[in-house]
Amino acid sequence: MAEKYNQLKDLGEFKLIEYLTQNVKIHHSSTLKGIGDDAAVIDHENRKTVVSTDMLVEGVHFDMVFTPLKHLGYKAVAVNLSDIYAMNAQPRQITVSLAISSKYSVEAIADIYEGMIHAANFYGVDIIGGDTTSSLKGLIISITALGEAKEEDIVYRNGAKEHDLLVVSGDLGGAYAGLNLLQREKEVWKVNPNMQPELEGYDYVLERQLKPEARKDVIQFLSELGVKPSSMIDVSDGLASEIHHICKQSNLGCSLYEEKIPIDPMTYKVVREFDMDPTVCALSGGEDYELLFTISQSDFDKIKGNPHWTVIGHMTDASHGVNLITSGGSVTPLKAQGWNSFDDQDKD
Amino acid sequence: MAEKYNQLKDLGEFKLIEYLTQNVKIHHSSTLKGIGDDAAVIDHENRKTVVSTDMLVEGVHFDMVFTPLKHLGYKAVAVNLSDIYAMNAQPRQITVSLAISSKYSVEAIADIYEGMIHAANFYGVDIIGGDTTSSLKGLIISITALGEAKEEDIVYRNGAKEHDLLVVSGDLGGAYAGLNLLQREKEVWKVNPNMQPELEGYDYVLERQLKPEARKDVIQFLSELGVKPSSMIDVSDGLASEIHHICKQSNLGCSLYEEKIPIDPMTYKVVREFDMDPTVCALSGGEDYELLFTISQSDFDKIKGNPHWTVIGHMTDASHGVNLITSGGSVTPLKAQGWNSFDDQDKD
Repeated sequence: MAEKYNQLKDLGEFKLIEYLTQNVKIHHSSTLKGIGDDAAVIDHENRKTVVSTDMLVEGVHFDMVFTPLKHLGYKAVAVNLSDIYAMNAQPRQITVSLAISSKYSVEAIADIYEGMIHAANFYGVDIIGGDTTSSLKGLIISITALGEAKEEDIVYRNGAKEHDLLVVSGDLGGAYAGLNLLQREKEVWKVNPNMQPELEGYDYVLERQLKPEARKDVIQFLSELGVKPSSMIDVSDGLASEIHHICKQSNLGCSLYEEKIPIDPMTYKVVREFDMDPTVCALSGGEDYELLFTISQSDFDKIKGNPHWTVIGHMTDASHGVNLITSGGSVTPLKAQGWNSFDDQDKD
Repeated sequence: MAEKYNQLKDLGEFKLIEYLTQNVKIHHSSTLKGIGDDAAVIDHENRKTVVSTDMLVEGVHFDMVFTPLKHLGYKAVAVNLSDIYAMNAQPRQITVSLAISSKYSVEAIADIYEGMIHAANFYGVDIIGGDTTSSLKGLIISITALGEAKEEDIVYRNGAKEHDLLVVSGDLGGAYAGLNLLQREKEVWKVNPNMQPELEGYDYVLERQLKPEARKDVIQFLSELGVKPSSMIDVSDGLASEIHHICKQSNLGCSLYEEKIPIDPMTYKVVREFDMDPTVCALSGGEDYELLFTISQSDFDKIKGNPHWTVIGHMTDASHGVNLITSGGSVTPLKAQGWNSFDDQDKD
């Protein structure tokens, strides 16, 4: 079909949607009506519904020069689900809206959609609707994710208590390291398009950038361990920015220990190649999609055996401020320098 | 504030969201948590949740030359809520995502947001979250609307029965007439920017295009009259396209009577100025956001007194096909020529 209708205008919106969604599976009985009416109908019964939305813009959030289409679709879904997990909730449904410029073939859009369906199947969420339209320039993906949770299980950003431990899953800075690698190869490629990219051996950080996973497993482990975090947030803008969100909303300070911040050896290696500071990458790089949460000290024994979770600090009274305790032992205010998509715009 | 931060990059995303959402009110106890966490939390209790999403793209769905910013914000919300009403459900919450190019000032975005908040207040829906990011070109608005309904009240497209009456609210073709007027004035303005637009006396069709309303009242009247339509859809792509959706999903045919199609005198006047056929505008113009529904003949007595609803046809066996009975009495297959955003792309 892709060959027969290689231009979007040959298909039109209705047939395009029909084509893209032909392999969409419904996993949940809570999805009473999916794609195909004015709206979808869902039933989370006696649970609360959790809703989050994210927009990804070509040239701002992703670069088509080095982003495989299927990975892009997968990532667009995963980063939205990450927000649902950050509420300690289970994602159940997503809507997917695409604005597509004419430079894209039907085949390209089908590849992106295939990545989305792959993610939907992996995380067990239903694609229940969306919108597909043309754009003046580039590709814009807007996804809204819906999840469910018992009210008593939902974890907000504002529940941290003084003396709580600050815990992060996985490791940080990898996605930013991967981005730098890809951007370097792009510059090389621009000078000499016949040059093969030198990306061998960098799989881990590339995957962190191109195909991140949402930490479904963290929510499951917390539940199995009987631990309810007092606050939680996902690390999308960088560790420093997320810590500030928790501190501000919980009206607390925090001591973060530099030497405790988990950074993968591959991330170290790449970051050093670029003459950057690994701690800065972890604090401000963003896009790691790990979960950052606080737990009561009394829960420490339950989580300490998990090699994938690291206690990186503890919550303090607000008057102490939000501080980084450096490896050298000095105390310095933690600056939130999360990425700002409006910086250095040279558009329109 | 708008003057102080007239560039988006001076504010950054977090402060921009804070600024835009400072006047957001929460109307419903079902909104447990609105803006400010990884996700919003809602509780539709023993009702089902209805979800719809729409994307509006500058240069595709709206033209900044003749679209007032506040109206654009209002319309973006109204057209989404129209889909919720088309399920016979009550809208309760929306998420709002914006991708904005650097040509927009903070003041311009604040105006769009003000229109959205105005619509949210008018329709009684809560803005519970969203995303705000930069775009490479123009403005993209993505809204997801959530509503609630008792399961037994929800009306799908697939429930029409043979002999049911086909009813439409309000009148059709006006939004398309208004669009043609605005496009004509734009051409005049391009030739002579000092020319004042000649739009006086055209208020009705201009408002149909620039500030359409979702038919909240239709849902309320149906409920008061004790009438549950057998199928319903909103008229966004044009009457012909919507009739085909109902027929296809209900596996029926339909006889539509040209002389019954409600067209406002002002629409007639404008359409005649452009040498267009009023029926074609009503059938294929789109953007009217009226509700099209089918009811059992036994409900006719209940609705016949409503001057704002018109019976325009009846449902037939599928073998009869989907037909237009012209004013001259001839029977011709009804063609669905809804607008295709992918047509005539000259982009990217």
